[in-house]
Parts: sequence; C-alpha cells; structure tokens
Amino acid sequence: MSQLSPLSSRQALAQRFRRTRLDSEALTETLTPEDMGAQSMTEASPSKWHLAHTTWFFATFLPLELEGPNWVTLFNSYYQTLGHPFPRPRRGLLTRPGLAEVMDWRAEVTEAVVELIENAVDEEWGVLVPRISLGIAHEQQHQELILTDILHLFSQNPLAPAYRPYRVAELRPPSALAWIGYPGGMVEIGHTSTDSFAFDNEGPRHPVYLPPWRLASRLVTNGEYLAFIKAGGYRRAEFWLSDGWDTVQEQGWSGPLYWRWQDNKPFALTLAGVQPLDPAAPVAHVSYYEADAYARWAHKRLPTEAEWESAAASLPLAGNDLASGLLRPLPALAATGTPAQMFGDLWEWTASPYTAYPGYKPGAGALGEYNGKFMVNQMVLRGGSCVTPANHLRASYRNFFPPNARWQFAGIRLAEDG
Amino acid sequence: MSQLSPLSSRQALAQRFRRTRLDSEALTETLTPEDMGAQSMTEASPSKWHLAHTTWFFATFLPLELEGPNWVTLFNSYYQTLGHPFPRPRRGLLTRPGLAEVMDWRAEVTEAVVELIENAVDEEWGVLVPRISLGIAHEQQHQELILTDILHLFSQNPLAPAYRPYRVAELRPPSALAWIGYPGGMVEIGHTSTDSFAFDNEGPRHPVYLPPWRLASRLVTNGEYLAFIKAGGYRRAEFWLSDGWDTVQEQGWSGPLYWRWQDNKPFALTLAGVQPLDPAAPVAHVSYYEADAYARWAHKRLPTEAEWESAAASLPLAGNDLASGLLRPLPALAATGTPAQMFGDLWEWTASPYTAYPGYKPGAGALGEYNGKFMVNQMVLRGGSCVTPANHLRASYRNFFPPNARWQFAGIRLAEDG
Amino acid sequence: MSQLSPLSSRQALAQRFRRTRLDSEALTETLTPEDMGAQSMTEASPSKWHLAHTTWFFATFLPLELEGPNWVTLFNSYYQTLGHPFPRPRRGLLTRPGLAEVMDWRAEVTEAVVELIENAVDEEWGVLVPRISLGIAHEQQHQELILTDILHLFSQNPLAPAYRPYRVAELRPPSALAWIGYPGGMVEIGHTSTDSFAFDNEGPRHPVYLPPWRLASRLVTNGEYLAFIKAGGYRRAEFWLSDGWDTVQEQGWSGPLYWRWQDNKPFALTLAGVQPLDPAAPVAHVSYYEADAYARWAHKRLPTEAEWESAAASLPLAGNDLASGLLRPLPALAATGTPAQMFGDLWEWTASPYTAYPGYKPGAGALGEYNGKFMVNQMVLRGGSCVTPANHLRASYRNFFPPNARWQFAGIRLAEDG
Amino acid sequence: MSQLSPLSSRQALAQRFRRTRLDSEALTETLTPEDMGAQSMTEASPSKWHLAHTTWFFATFLPLELEGPNWVTLFNSYYQTLGHPFPRPRRGLLTRPGLAEVMDWRAEVTEAVVELIENAVDEEWGVLVPRISLGIAHEQQHQELILTDILHLFSQNPLAPAYRPYRVAELRPPSALAWIGYPGGMVEIGHTSTDSFAFDNEGPRHPVYLPPWRLASRLVTNGEYLAFIKAGGYRRAEFWLSDGWDTVQEQGWSGPLYWRWQDNKPFALTLAGVQPLDPAAPVAHVSYYEADAYARWAHKRLPTEAEWESAAASLPLAGNDLASGLLRPLPALAATGTPAQMFGDLWEWTASPYTAYPGYKPGAGALGEYNGKFMVNQMVLRGGSCVTPANHLRASYRNFFPPNARWQFAGIRLAEDG
Repeated sequence: MSQLSPLSSRQALAQRFRRTRLDSEALTETLTPEDMGAQSMTEASPSKWHLAHTTWFFATFLPLELEGPNWVTLFNSYYQTLGHPFPRPRRGLLTRPGLAEVMDWRAEVTEAVVELIENAVDEEWGVLVPRISLGIAHEQQHQELILTDILHLFSQNPLAPAYRPYRVAELRPPSALAWIGYPGGMVEIGHTSTDSFAFDNEGPRHPVYLPPWRLASRLVTNGEYLAFIKAGGYRRAEFWLSDGWDTVQEQGWSGPLYWRWQDNKPFALTLAGVQPLDPAAPVAHVSYYEADAYARWAHKRLPTEAEWESAAASLPLAGNDLASGLLRPLPALAATGTPAQMFGDLWEWTASPYTAYPGYKPGAGALGEYNGKFMVNQMVLRGGSCVTPANHLRASYRNFFPPNARWQFAGIRLAEDG
Repeated sequence: MSQLSPLSSRQALAQRFRRTRLDSEALTETLTPEDMGAQSMTEASPSKWHLAHTTWFFATFLPLELEGPNWVTLFNSYYQTLGHPFPRPRRGLLTRPGLAEVMDWRAEVTEAVVELIENAVDEEWGVLVPRISLGIAHEQQHQELILTDILHLFSQNPLAPAYRPYRVAELRPPSALAWIGYPGGMVEIGHTSTDSFAFDNEGPRHPVYLPPWRLASRLVTNGEYLAFIKAGGYRRAEFWLSDGWDTVQEQGWSGPLYWRWQDNKPFALTLAGVQPLDPAAPVAHVSYYEADAYARWAHKRLPTEAEWESAAASLPLAGNDLASGLLRPLPALAATGTPAQMFGDLWEWTASPYTAYPGYKPGAGALGEYNGKFMVNQMVLRGGSCVTPANHLRASYRNFFPPNARWQFAGIRLAEDG
Repeated sequence: MSQLSPLSSRQALAQRFRRTRLDSEALTETLTPEDMGAQSMTEASPSKWHLAHTTWFFATFLPLELEGPNWVTLFNSYYQTLGHPFPRPRRGLLTRPGLAEVMDWRAEVTEAVVELIENAVDEEWGVLVPRISLGIAHEQQHQELILTDILHLFSQNPLAPAYRPYRVAELRPPSALAWIGYPGGMVEIGHTSTDSFAFDNEGPRHPVYLPPWRLASRLVTNGEYLAFIKAGGYRRAEFWLSDGWDTVQEQGWSGPLYWRWQDNKPFALTLAGVQPLDPAAPVAHVSYYEADAYARWAHKRLPTEAEWESAAASLPLAGNDLASGLLRPLPALAATGTPAQMFGDLWEWTASPYTAYPGYKPGAGALGEYNGKFMVNQMVLRGGSCVTPANHLRASYRNFFPPNARWQFAGIRLAEDG
Repeated sequence: MSQLSPLSSRQALAQRFRRTRLDSEALTETLTPEDMGAQSMTEASPSKWHLAHTTWFFATFLPLELEGPNWVTLFNSYYQTLGHPFPRPRRGLLTRPGLAEVMDWRAEVTEAVVELIENAVDEEWGVLVPRISLGIAHEQQHQELILTDILHLFSQNPLAPAYRPYRVAELRPPSALAWIGYPGGMVEIGHTSTDSFAFDNEGPRHPVYLPPWRLASRLVTNGEYLAFIKAGGYRRAEFWLSDGWDTVQEQGWSGPLYWRWQDNKPFALTLAGVQPLDPAAPVAHVSYYEADAYARWAHKRLPTEAEWESAAASLPLAGNDLASGLLRPLPALAATGTPAQMFGDLWEWTASPYTAYPGYKPGAGALGEYNGKFMVNQMVLRGGSCVTPANHLRASYRNFFPPNARWQFAGIRLAEDG
C-alpha cells in the first residue's frame, strides 16, 4: 500500500460510495414501479431511469467485471462519443428492463465498484479516485432530479398524489427585507484547488473586478410575488425580456408553475400534495424570465454569479437542504447582517449566462462532455435547494438551466448597485 | 319475471359479461405493471388505461351502486358531453391509481354489474340489455387494442421484448393468387336486424347497386410486397395518393411499420419479438396509403366496402382470430373458389371512406358519441384480424382508421372491375 | 383539312383559348405587382403564380416552340412525375421572374398555342383538342382561385383592402325555406359522354340507388347561421364531428372565416372590403365541419353528391356566377318548386367524401396526376359559386376540398330523408 | 439661437439625417417592388418594411405634424408598449400600402423631420438631438438588414438572382495566420462618454480584469473552413455544443448557409449571384455554433467581447464596410503586427453572451425597449461587416444574434490563452 491509498482512505471512499447508492434508492421508497417508469416531459426523466443512468456511469467509466446485462446504450444520457443515446423524449417507454432488473443491476455494479476500490493497485488509484468522486457527485445531482421530476409527473395527474407528507417545521414569522452592502473591487471566484471535490466548470479560480453592490437579505416571498401578479405582472410586457414575454404568451403563464387557485385562494402543488401557500415562504418554481421580470418590476436586478459567490464565500455551508428532510423552502430567519437562505431552500437565478471561466478546458474523451458542451443558452443558478444533497452546498457550485425552466426548486434573490 | 328476462337469459348475459371481463384481464398476464402503464404514442393507450376505461364505460352508463373511487373523468376517452376527458396524449402519466387499484375497481364494477343483471326489474331490462351488450362489444374492441398498443410500445424498445412466444402453427405452402368474380347488380348491405348485436354504424341495411367485380382469392403476401419495394415502390410518386406521398416523405417510410433489416434479410417485429419474415404470410401493418399504392403498382384497386361485404355475406364466420391464440396472420390455404382469409388474419383496407349509411342516425345522449362523430377522414376496414375477438367477425362489421395508421393488424386484398 | 378540324372549329378553339387567357389577366386589373406576388398561406397562391402556372400547363403539355425562358420547374404545381415542384409554401418568395416577365412569357405561350391550333396537322388534332380543352378548364379553375386567394391575402391586412367595389344588385327580400321532395330509386350520375368537356373524375356515368330524400329550397342564410352561433354552436361539442371539434378548439373558431364584429354588429370581409352582413344572403366561407355541425343543430343533414346531382340534372345551367360580376352570393329568389341557388352563388358542401366513381381510371403519364391522386381526405362540393367561370356550371362537376377549408366561396344546403 | 444649436449644427444634423434617408433608398435601386415586398423567413423582413419601419420610428418618437396616413401599428416592430405590433412572420403579406405609397410617406416624414430640426426651439433641442441621432443609427442598422434579408430572399429562388454585379477588387494573395499577444490586466471597455453617438448597451464604460490572451491576425478563411468540413466537422459531435449538435441534426447542416456544390466544386450564393468560393476570403454566413465548433476543432477558442474590444480600441476605424461598395469580405492583407479585418469584412462571433454591463439601465418608456429586452439567448458580435454603414464601425459597438443565426455577414476570428 502506498501513501496515497491507505486502508482508511479506501474504506472511506467505499463507504461514501455505498452511502450515495443507498441514498438514491431510499428516495424512491414511497414510489411504485409505475411511478418510477413514467416520463412527464422531455426535460424530466423517470426515477427508474435516474437509478439506471447513475449505474451506467460507473459501468461505463470504470473497468468493472460484470456478468449481468449490458445496457450502456439504453441508459446513456447524452454522451455522443459513446454511441447514439436512446432518444431522450422516449425514456418513459423503456418498460423493460423492469425496475427489479434495474435494481439487480444496480446491486451488481455497486458491489463491483466496492471491490474495485478495495483491490485497486496503486497505479490505478490516481485515476480511480477522481472518477469515482465524479460518479458520486453525478449520482447526487440525479438524487435531486428524482425529486424535481417526480413532482412534475405528479403535477400532471388530476389526483395530485403526494410524494410524502410533510414533516413538521418550526414556525417562522415573516422577516423584513434588508439590504447588505459589499464594497466590490478585485475579488476571486471559482473553486479553490484543495483536495475537495468540484466540477470542472467551477474553475479555474480567477480574479474578477466588481463594482460595489448590495444583496437582499432573503429570497423573494410568495406574498411579495403575489403582489407582482396582482399588479398585472404577467400582463404587462414592459417588465419582461422579449423572449420571456413570448413565452408568457405562448404558454399562457399566469403564475409560478405549481400554483393553483381554489375558492379564490392560492395553493401550491408540492411534494406533499396540494398545500396552502405560505406568504412568508420563498416563491418557488419560477423561471429566469419570471425572476428577471419580478426584479424589473421591483426596480431591482438579479445578482451576477460573481456577486453571489463573493457574498457567499464567507458563509457557513449550512442550510435547509435535502438532509433536513423538509422537502420545501422555509421562511427566512430574521435578518442578521449576513444574507439568509444563501445555501439550501431554493436555487437562486443569477443574471449570468453559463459560460466558461477564463482558462477553462473540458477534459478529454467522453468525460469531457460533462459540463462544457452545455455552455450556451443557459443561466447560472447558485446555492442549492431543499432537495439538494448536503455536500453539494458550496460557494463555487454552478448549476445551470435554460431561462424558461420552471420545474426546478428555483427562486429569486434581488440585488442592486451599491 | 317477464318473458323477456327468464332466469336463463339473465344467467347467459351475466356469464357472457364475466367472460369478457376475464378475457381482457387474461390478455395482460405476461405484462408487468410498468408495461401496462406506458403510452407509446397519442393514438395508442396503456393496457391499464384500457382495463380502466372499459370499466368506466359500465360505471358511467349503468346505474351501479359503487363504494369505491370515482374515476369517471380520468378514464373518459372522448365523450365530450360527459365533461372534459383527460388529455389523450398524457394517459401514460396516470401512474396513480396504480394497477392494483384499477384491478380492485374492475372487480368491484364487475360484481356490481352482475348484481344489476341478476336483480334488475323487468322495466329496466329493456334498457339494460342493449347497454350491457354495447359495453361488452366495447370492451372486446379494447381487447384488440391492448395487443396492438403493446406491440407498438415494445417496438420503441431497442431490446424488442416479446409479448409471448408464438405457438406452433401448421406449415402452409404459398398459395397462388386467383380471382373470384361477382356479378354485381342490386345488393343489400348492412346489419340484418335480428336479435344479434351490431354497432349502430352497421345499419340501416340498405340496397346498393354494384357493377360486376372480382376479388383476389387471398391477401397480398410479404413476398409480393417485397417485390413492390424492390421495384422502387416507396420512391416513385406515381403510385401514391398525394397525401400518401407527402406522408412517405415526411415520415421517411421505406417499408411496413415493423419491418427490420438485419444482414440484408427482412425480419418483422411481432408479438413474439423479432421474427424472420415469412414470404407466404400476408403483409401486415401497412397504412391505407401503402395498400392503395401497392394496388396501383399492381394495376388493381382496393375493393369497396359494399363489394367486400357482399362477397363475405355467404362465408362461414370463421378464421384465424384471437381465439386461435396464434397472434399472427397465417399464409392462405389453397384457393377453393371462395376468397380465403376474409375473416381473421388481417383487417382489410377498403376503398371506402367511413361515412353514414342512408338513414343512419346516432343515438341520443352520450352513447350517441360512439360511432357517428368519427365519420370523416377515416377509411373502412373489414373482416377482423388475428387479434380480433371471435364474435367480432361478421360481414357487416365496419372498422375504421385514418389512412396513415399503421399499428393495427391491417393488410391488403386486391380487387378489379369484373 | 379533315372533317375533324374544319377551319371553323379551329377558329372556335383558338378564340375560346384566347378569351380564357384574357379573362385570367382581366381578373388582376385592380391588383398591383406586389399584391400579385404575395402568398398568404400554403393553400393559397400568388396571382402571379396562377398566371404563370396556367401558362406552364400549356408549355409543358403541348409541343410548343418557345424562345423565351424555361420556367417549368418553377411553376409546376404538384406533378411529381415532372421533376421536383418548387415547394408550395414558398411560392410568395419567387419575386423573380417579375410580373412583367411572366406576362411576356404568357403572351409568348398564348401566341404559340394559337399558332399550334392553326397549323396542326390532322394527326395531331385528336390529341391537341382534349389537351387544350383541359388546359382551358384548368385555367378557369385558377381564375376562381385568383379571387379566393386574393381575398385571403387581403384578409391578413389590417387595412382590409378591397379588390373592387361591389356593383349594385337587385334587392331581394328574404325567402322562406321550403323542402322539395325526390322519389329516389335507381338514378344515373356522372358526366354524359357527349362532346362537351368534363374532367375525368366526373365519369364514368353510372347507376346509383337512392332512397327518397328532400332538399332545401335555398342555401342557409347568414341570419340562420347567426342563430346557430347564438345558440352556442361553436361551444357545444355535441353538434360536431370529432375532428371538427378539435379544429374549433385549436383554431379558436367562433364564426365563419371572414366575419368581423364591430360595435356588436356583424360584418364580413369581402372582395369589396368590410361590408355589413346581409341576413338574407347565404352564409359563406364555412368549412365542411361547420356545414355539418349546422345541419346537426338544425336536425337535418347535408345532401350526398348523388342526391345533389340528381336534383340538379334537370335545372337550367344558370346562376350568379363570375359572369354576373357581382362577386358575392345573393339572397335566394322566392321558392318556386325547384331548388334555388343550385348553380352559382356558393359551392355547396355535400356529405360525400371525394372518391373514384366505379370504373374510374386516371389517364397515363403526368396528365393522369390531375384529379385521381387527391381522392382521399377531401369532401365533394357542388354547383359553383359567384366567382366560378360560367361554363364550369354543370350538374356533374365535382369540386373537392379538405373538410377544414374555409377560404373558398362555400356554403350550406340542407337535406333530409324523404 | 442658443449655444446648443447654432445654425451650423442644425444644418449638420439635417444633412446627416437626409443623407441617411437617401442612403437607405439608394440600397433598393436594383430591386423591384415585388422583391421589396417578400419576406423569406420570420427573422428577415421585406425591404419595403425596412423603409417603412425606419420611417415609423421618426413618426412615432418625434412630434411631427403629418397629413398623410397613420401606419404606426402596421410598421411597429416589437414595441409592446406602443400597442400590438403586426405579427412579425406576416410582414410579407402587407402588399398595401404599396411601395409607392410608402415612399410618399417616407418623403413626407423626411421633410417633416427636417422642418422640425430647422424650427425646433431651444428647449426641445436637447430632447430632439439624441432621438434623431438614435433614429439615424436605427435606420443605418436597417440598411444592413436590407442587404442581409434580400440575400436570404434570393437564396430561396432557384434562379439565384443577383442583387448587383460585384465591383472589381484588388487581388490579394492568401496571408499566413499569425498570433498577436496581449498582456491582459485591468482594462476598460464600453463607450467613452464623449459627444459621439453610441447605443445605450455600449455603456457604462467599466473596468474588466483580463488574463493574457492572443488573437488571430485575420479571420478564418474559406480554405481553412473547408478543411474542417473535410475532417468531418459536421459529422463529429465532439466539436459541438450540445444545442449546436442538435441544430446540425435537425437542420441537416453540412456547410455554411450559402455554400453550394456544383461539379464537386464549392460555390457560394452572394449578392452578386452564385460565385466560385475564394479560398483566401474569410468564411461567411456561419452561426455561433459553427464558429465555436471550428474553434474547438482547431484547438483554439473564440475571443470574449472584452478581449476583442480591448484589442480593437487602438486600431483605426477603417475597413471594408458598406462604403467600399464591394459587398463581400476580402482576403486579409499581409500580417503587420496588428490584427487585420477587425473592422468591416465580417462581424466576428465572440464567446460572450449578450448581457448588461454593470450599472446598465435601459431608458424609460418605449425607447427603453430598444436594446435591453433582448439580453438573453443571444451572443455578441463585433467589428462590422462589408454591408455595415461606415459610421457603425467602432470598438464599443455590440451587435447580437441568436447562436443559430446564419444569414448575417458573420465570420470567425480565433483566440487563445496568452
């Protein structure tokens, strides 16, 4: 055994890997095989597919010895260099292999990876660790998608099924909106190259010059967003980007994706079924277009990702994330001088299109297709949400979605020039 | 008890009803809940939906006392007068109610209908019998659709799953094509109003004048159709109706829906998975456009529905239907002076658009939506197929599909002027 | 000179040909080159294209010696056997050749055809006469389309330009609706093979058996149709064919194509611009779906084409056609025992899908593409309209359009069982 | 006369205004009214519309006294706050008002603006000057679009008409590709607030930190791009952004928009008709997706807009622009130590999404809709092209188009990290 891979670090990696695999499976405990097979729109995938695709990742990128079936084309997501992926809009038609078979395959791959970790010779270790770490991070991303996608599926069903009843959360009174100022100047953003994991798109770390700015102390609430709607927000073109306004017209948007009105009162479809809207909780499931329009109506703007990251860099990595088990964003705690809700609760749309940092180069081969090829037509979101795995909370993490996407747990934080 | 409803006729109806319900369920024995939940295209429906919708029919149109759930909006197909049906393209998203719940509901409704039959007072009997008979015929139509739709679903899966292995059938050598002449003149078509069941669109029986014609002794075979393809059939506009040619171009058709080429040899995706193409078996899964183009290439034409019915009227109601359990069309028996394969094997496209017979009037209320409102943009098919329930074989039965539909078990019989 | 082609008959043909060419050109007198170049939808064509395409017909199917440009691909409409036609939806993009060049080409072709007529040797005469006659009839069809298409183009312009001010017509009071009975039995329909011209789809003449029926004495009026609308006609699914109802929903139909409401009063966009709706005039610019729905609401039905032709056969070939110059349908004259408005005023939707008559065979070669290849997904209209050239009025003439087409001058005549 | 508006400055503005108006009209000299009315795709507009819309701008935003027609809704492009603009995809259907009427309206508005300039009281002057200057710049943008849009229209015509024969240009041998290094550090970009005109999106001027970089000495040539195609550029997914690859597949791209192959030799459709491809001239009419894919294949990248502007800031504002009258990009002059072709020849795709500069705020009211509302889903292009009016050449000018746009005169300049 070399210094690089003492027994303890092997055990730690194996344990982290196993834990991730079990976490994914635990997320589907309340779902039926039928729930897990359906695909509600092109952008969402069946839970079974998520469980299979994360398995495919390890089976494809690690030298595993497997006896079971070979489903590498079937569960390839978008890696063009690995052959033609099965068409994304038809993932819900893969009723075979069935869930049980997929779970068997998962188990076989899980054991094979653990064995690989335990038996890898030192020469392999340097390649294995980053690949397995990437596989774990990849699987955690899909954990979040299992939840966002099942919510979307259930939203299509007139019976409005619940994924799980809500657990009780502490009551929090509404908190006033305050503004926190930052001096600006030269700052550095991007992942610091220590030994902790980060995706390639979080680097290289680099200097950025920022003018002074101010950040809202908390996310925009349902109550505030309701005022925007009542002020004609969805009927007044002047608040909207041109593409946003076209989308509002074409899709007939009149409020956030999951809002429902019953007896003239607002409700929201949630992972716990239809629930009354809490005016103090942050508004969720809005697109970039809506976030931007709200900001314009409020005479503010959205923060850039550099402003967000710079403000977040010194905050503790804690928040209402998947580990809380609450599955919903909570009202903010009272203002304290630092911005609340930066980590967890909801992803925050930034004003920054998703592009490469200076000096960024994607890796070679298929793994290089991970992040770089999506760097157009998408906006960056920051901070994680109530369904984000805990160790995906970090200041440098860059999530990205097209500006019309609404089914993620995304909300709005305002900013203004300082 | 009145004369209309002696114990024996009640028992007979109850038995027929129960048998139909069990037959439907037996068709899904080899399917998983996942298979039964997926919808592969707008025109096809999940097996679970078929089982639920046929139940909905009885629960809606009969005065049943049910304690269980009320899913009448969810499983309404297209009856606009009964409220907004759930959107057809999204039937695969109804993962709840799950299959087990649907089966429980089926059982409850089955028992309630049997009870209704057994306890109906004489005044109700006259209304009940035609409604239940219609419900049985309706459910049998969906039995066929369960099979056509699952084949389409499996065709979308690269693993090409089999619904069931084929049962062995007798070997039949190819049979030569002969022509059977009919004198024409005044004939009558349409259902004869005896006590046997028929759909409203099969009547009124009425006279039609026909010039002499001749009918092919059997269906067009795979081998013959292959010759059409090799002669450039799909690349030569002169054989095609204008709408047909547009469809060929837009959809990139180059052969029947389920044909596959492997190592330069033709195969077909079937209910038994991928199978070598039998040149003597009739070509299946072609659209009206293809049937018509083939006929033009062969310097023949398709028969009208009146020609077909007139020729079929004197033939025995027997053929290779669902009861054979073979699940595929067979080569024709040697010519005998009467046309072979008229009943069973494959539905036969006719040259007749689906319209009302003279004097046809749909019934009042929601049940009147059954047939009449589809009388445009569709072509009539006759004769039943290898997946048609046996008692749907009759000379007057009018099936109908749009001219571009290919997922039904439909084939080609040629005709010519006499 | 043979008996077939005495000087007089040559002169007559040449004169008829020249007259047709001039008539087409006269129809565009009030139009600008810009008006004549634009295409408002795929189904409509620019006037310039109509003038060019009718010229193409002669240049393609006659052995002309032409020195000018060769635009045979450019102005081919749909003859697949003559090379790839220029894509139909883009006809409005052919700004070159300009109108002046097209008119020069027209003139050259016109003279060349006249010369051909005058100098043809007897052996050619037998081929030439039917081709030129077909070319004349073809051009007359496009005369009508010049008017229907320019009306559609102008309907897209908020300025609502007028093609021409209306000429004054006699005032006619509303006429009561009466019913005219026909005994039915064996009738013959189809063109009688005398020496007069007819399209191939009007034959062969053949016997048809008809039950007794009754025909409305006149077309449905704007006033009557308004009552249908006010009774919720466009909001009640029970009146509509399923495809019709889908179209109403998707297209947001709430009245005939060109109706406009101003100050709560109904107007119609016409060839004379926006005009108040005359309640006694027949309702125009409705689709088959609307005609059928209106009939169902009125507890009547549409006539079959055999019923229509049988009733029309004995009527004089006269009516409010293009020759009247009125360019709009007029209120019916008082009932007289025979149906009014059968010829001219508006095309009348029949209940008959457009199919081949028994024994019909399209001609060989490209000219065979004229009628037969459209015999699916279309409904037959009969009788001609106020923009139909006079000699297209005949009992056997079969016009056809898809059931959703509304830009033709089409209306509704009711029928019922006798 | 106040100091703000001496006679000379009034005369200068009036002259500049008149000149711009005449320039626009001169661009259409070789076009027919038909050419000027057609719209070849949603993104392009008819020349007549451009002439009318630029007139609308002055008629809407200036207090003119006009006697003529009021076409403000008709020719509004996208100003939602000024009522519903006429639908963009249907601009080619506005055959009325005709070209002559539009030209009359133009003349009336031109004179009214001149009169306004000459007679404005001093209080108005401060508002008038920026508005008229904006109107002039706006009209110049549309001058370029007249040319790009007519080229696209002609590209749809199989006759491949020429806008104008090419004027002879000096012969230039191919020039080798060199790299010019920049040290980076803190730079300033954005328009310097002197009295020269700039659009609002070019400011505020602000500091940016840049790492060292290198810029190609010239644009990528046709010959180099051909090598990319021959290396399988359009068939190898690894070079493409994910959205780019999807576009290549869906649109069937296999080369730049206007390339044509004849006898296995490459040609391009140009404003002078079909011309042989000059391997030394820069490749034109490529999308951002293609520019980015080419760069990845070449192991380079595209410059950011800050890198581009920083490099361009010290270069003379001269190049092959609209004033040269050449209407095509020329091969680069031999490398000199500064990058060639920065201004004129072709717009250069940058790696920068089009977003707001720090502190940017759009103006109030309808004029504020000018630039800001397009700041999503578009990429910045820099430098101007051979069809850009001369005074639109400046280092800070930000052009923007969606990443799939190809009909602009856009090309590729490579960059790399320093």
